[in-house]
Amino acid sequence: MKFRLSRRRWLAAAVLSGLLAGCAQTPGAGAADPLPSWNDGANKQRIVAFVRAATTEGSKDFVAPPGRIAVFDNDGTLWAEQPMYFQFFFALDRVKALAPQHPEWKDKEPFASLLKGDMKGALAGGEHAILEIVMATHAGMTTDEFAKMVGDWAATARHPTTQRRFTEMVYQPMLEVLAYLRANGFKTFIVSGGGIEFMRPWTERVYGIPPEQVVGSSIKTQFEVRGGKPVLVRLPQLNFIDDKEGKPVGINLHIGRRPIVAFGNSDGDFQMLQWTTTSGPGARLGMIVHHDDAVREYAYDRNSSIGRLSQGLDQYQAMGWGLISMKNDWKVIFPPLK
Amino acid sequence: MKFRLSRRRWLAAAVLSGLLAGCAQTPGAGAADPLPSWNDGANKQRIVAFVRAATTEGSKDFVAPPGRIAVFDNDGTLWAEQPMYFQFFFALDRVKALAPQHPEWKDKEPFASLLKGDMKGALAGGEHAILEIVMATHAGMTTDEFAKMVGDWAATARHPTTQRRFTEMVYQPMLEVLAYLRANGFKTFIVSGGGIEFMRPWTERVYGIPPEQVVGSSIKTQFEVRGGKPVLVRLPQLNFIDDKEGKPVGINLHIGRRPIVAFGNSDGDFQMLQWTTTSGPGARLGMIVHHDDAVREYAYDRNSSIGRLSQGLDQYQAMGWGLISMKNDWKVIFPPLK
Repeated sequence: MKFRLSRRRWLAAAVLSGLLAGCAQTPGAGAADPLPSWNDGANKQRIVAFVRAATTEGSKDFVAPPGRIAVFDNDGTLWAEQPMYFQFFFALDRVKALAPQHPEWKDKEPFASLLKGDMKGALAGGEHAILEIVMATHAGMTTDEFAKMVGDWAATARHPTTQRRFTEMVYQPMLEVLAYLRANGFKTFIVSGGGIEFMRPWTERVYGIPPEQVVGSSIKTQFEVRGGKPVLVRLPQLNFIDDKEGKPVGINLHIGRRPIVAFGNSDGDFQMLQWTTTSGPGARLGMIVHHDDAVREYAYDRNSSIGRLSQGLDQYQAMGWGLISMKNDWKVIFPPLK
Repeated sequence: MKFRLSRRRWLAAAVLSGLLAGCAQTPGAGAADPLPSWNDGANKQRIVAFVRAATTEGSKDFVAPPGRIAVFDNDGTLWAEQPMYFQFFFALDRVKALAPQHPEWKDKEPFASLLKGDMKGALAGGEHAILEIVMATHAGMTTDEFAKMVGDWAATARHPTTQRRFTEMVYQPMLEVLAYLRANGFKTFIVSGGGIEFMRPWTERVYGIPPEQVVGSSIKTQFEVRGGKPVLVRLPQLNFIDDKEGKPVGINLHIGRRPIVAFGNSDGDFQMLQWTTTSGPGARLGMIVHHDDAVREYAYDRNSSIGRLSQGLDQYQAMGWGLISMKNDWKVIFPPLK
């Protein structure tokens, strides 16, 4: 007798095989698994075990909800950062938009090279050149005007390689970590070297992280009343660099207590992870996203000028941190396009 | 026949009279009234009407929960500030505690006068003298050490007149406003000229406001690793003054969006109220606590060096803000002692 699959049996088999294997390809599927885009393995287990311990009353690692503070770097941890920090693409687009009002830029570095598309020439001036570009594009307007510029840009600008919007180049497995932590009573914060006001216009929509939970680098602002309306004007003066040793400083200033969870990807996150994971008693979770997937994203660490990971690679084991392999731990990199 | 009140009738009468009048004397009683320590009047009605409109879907003034941001000054708005800012009492106690390690203070102003109890002499040096006192008492230790000093002090130090702990000199009617707003989906923030790290050790316990929702003045901190443990050391350098024009700057830096509710009491809060209440469309609530109760608290405004209210008195009506009379609007000032 020939085996004939009834429609009902076929459906059952499809569902079963989906549960066993197929749903692995579908981020968000599988209600029982809080991290469906993560392959089973030491890192996924570590995250889940930590959250269970921190939220189980009576566990020696239990933490009451107000102390459930989790911090995340942004560039390279929540969204991509190659071939250059996305905020720099924004700055370039602003330079192009502003060029007609600045005829002098044609002969003035770093703008002259930028406008010719010569990135290497533009950055030959090093930190000073970058600062000039940032101040020319990020200062001189009100905070409301700047937020609108960023919002408009984020809604339209696209990554040169993937052609996705930059805000679509966020990591699906990390979106799941954010949601999983929040579902377990954690407050999730961004602590990024990027500009605090460059992130805030879109972090709530993209990550579910409200503006008051975003920490970043900043320039100074000044209160003025213009035509009876109060505004804050963005000044071309650095206020704070939220990177390396600055990250614990920024965390302390904005959050005021030590996190118990930190995710980063570069040596700029080293002190943040150190600050977070030495704050026991009780378990702490420190994780590094390792960019080792040249096929689906990028592969870089010690020798990259952007997102360099060297100290972290040398010390993560001694520090008790997990090293996430994008290649092996993540089933997908980016979320499906809507 | 003599009228004899049955126990049951007596209870009913007691409950009824309590509802009609008696419970007015008992802060916290009366589940139906969210602000039991407030006398009925224009200011109480204004607060309740605002919250109803902001939380009623379909109302033209409806605000979805993420936008329900309320900011409160601390000194003079949530707790008392006379005869001098309470943080200054903390500084004085620290000067006394540190004096044995600083024999040179016996001949050095402002410390010499302070140690003799001559406040006027100590403050003769003006801003510079205050800064010297703050830096000598607030810098030089780690953030953890400082938090412990503040916590210990708050648990024991008492106000010279009332003999209450300073943290018991918070305003009961304002505690009710905080709780009422939170029960209606608002996030409550402190935005104070006081030291951010002077407030955080006790704001959660006293006001229900967690450290990450406290904005204040700050000195710089520096990341160091001591004996393998990362610490933040408090440096004798000003970082930010969260007063007057600084308050909108601090709100923008820490919260990243405009509040829709602001409570203050002095001209140091003017720009914060201005920033909050001109952010329409939709209703905004700006309220000033007026210290006009010399019997139960203090009476001061235009001529006080602490908590001066002059610009606010002149302009509150034109600005559309409410002026709260502590004498007439508040049934009680401080909470009952536990």
